[in-house]
Amino acid sequence: MFDSGVGGLTVLHECLVSLPEEDFVYLGDTAMFPYGTRDPEQLRERIRAIATLLLDDGAKLLVIACNTATSIGVEVAREVAGERGVEVVPVVEPQAEIAAAITDNARVGVLATPNTVESGAYRRALEGQGRALEVTEVEAPDLAPFIQDGSHFDRGVVEMTRTYCAPLKRAEVDTLILGCTHYPLVAPMLQRILGRDVRLVSGGHAVAAAAQRTLVSAGLARAVDGEGEYRFLCSGDVDSFRELGTRFLQMPLGEIERIEIVPADYP
Amino acid sequence: MFDSGVGGLTVLHECLVSLPEEDFVYLGDTAMFPYGTRDPEQLRERIRAIATLLLDDGAKLLVIACNTATSIGVEVAREVAGERGVEVVPVVEPQAEIAAAITDNARVGVLATPNTVESGAYRRALEGQGRALEVTEVEAPDLAPFIQDGSHFDRGVVEMTRTYCAPLKRAEVDTLILGCTHYPLVAPMLQRILGRDVRLVSGGHAVAAAAQRTLVSAGLARAVDGEGEYRFLCSGDVDSFRELGTRFLQMPLGEIERIEIVPADYP
Repeated sequence: MFDSGVGGLTVLHECLVSLPEEDFVYLGDTAMFPYGTRDPEQLRERIRAIATLLLDDGAKLLVIACNTATSIGVEVAREVAGERGVEVVPVVEPQAEIAAAITDNARVGVLATPNTVESGAYRRALEGQGRALEVTEVEAPDLAPFIQDGSHFDRGVVEMTRTYCAPLKRAEVDTLILGCTHYPLVAPMLQRILGRDVRLVSGGHAVAAAAQRTLVSAGLARAVDGEGEYRFLCSGDVDSFRELGTRFLQMPLGEIERIEIVPADYP
Repeated sequence: MFDSGVGGLTVLHECLVSLPEEDFVYLGDTAMFPYGTRDPEQLRERIRAIATLLLDDGAKLLVIACNTATSIGVEVAREVAGERGVEVVPVVEPQAEIAAAITDNARVGVLATPNTVESGAYRRALEGQGRALEVTEVEAPDLAPFIQDGSHFDRGVVEMTRTYCAPLKRAEVDTLILGCTHYPLVAPMLQRILGRDVRLVSGGHAVAAAAQRTLVSAGLARAVDGEGEYRFLCSGDVDSFRELGTRFLQMPLGEIERIEIVPADYP
């Protein structure tokens, strides 16, 4: 499983709940964070390198726990994994399915990074659900970096989030896709701003279910007994990854391995 | 609204989502924390003082955002508030209703402080739901203090929580009442230990709904337009209350007023 930082830990958490018997390797590409505003072509090469690294490590399934990486690079990941006969579980499609199923007024919002919105991945996924939906997409360039930095909730960040939410409120969406794996970590703030009647759809649960289905249907699921191992790799500062990761995941991370990814970090 | 510390902020959060137009005063009795292991008679006097203080401040509704305070002192709070014609919304009953309604196998767990378990409040509330339930109660003396301290998730706390959860797993409960308002803050850890099939019932949402019903039926609900004010009082260290409260509530707390409560803190 990989993500641009610690946000994907919200996906890992759900996988640990659903698949406690499996072993997990989580790679946080924190040196390259944030993906949301990077050049897409550079990102695709980065994703190719990460997928190769995890497959070399023996992954039997590749989970992309990052919406930007899914939107920009799911084809690259599928190409690399497909050569080894390994399947890829991305985040976008499972969320779109849930959102389309639960909206009452057929007005669905998407809050995501600029790269994810520009890729059109959610819009396409929602349009493919066989239901006429009014989709309102909002780019939130500064929200994931705020979460990744572990910053303090002050008046500024609340106002910023309020601004992001304004078009969603005007459009009267009753369902909001949290289109970045960081966002569940600020779900309380979002829910307060949007009100009780807006349902938030995060990626974690949906991805965990998709991962479970994929493993079972491929005959790769481990027999349920005991607990698997987990291991963390990170391309940036290990200490800040440990501090944020421990708090978000609510468990000790053990030894975190600092890795170099080639092609190297871009400026 | 009052609590022994910052845990009740999980209840305040849900009230802010459901009742954004109302003004809130939140009192965290952090000098007396934890309530869960205090002498019940002393606690009742403390609760009498706090209720009086909040009613003097002009409260039109009194929410007890603390399970221990509810279990030990709801009668005292009702007595003090009743003299002024003010209603009290406690946390225990609304949760018991939800748990009894959603359990499939009629096996309900309660994780709570020693005082709450010993009071029998949840057991009575569950028995009053008109359904034969197998109730498993577990005392978790060290879990709320861990959360209140803002401590680091290490192997020790995970093992401690695993020990608390063991009798619940043996009893095969499919529904767990989080019998302390602090516990929703470690819901991810609990969910991971208990697995996907156990539903966690926290107090916040249920209390917010009860508060709303009570205000509406008493004709005290404010017309929905704009946002109310919020204000925080605390009997202990203001800085640690601010740090934890800001992180848990995901919003700035503004000025926090340090208050003295008589009868004074017990050793």
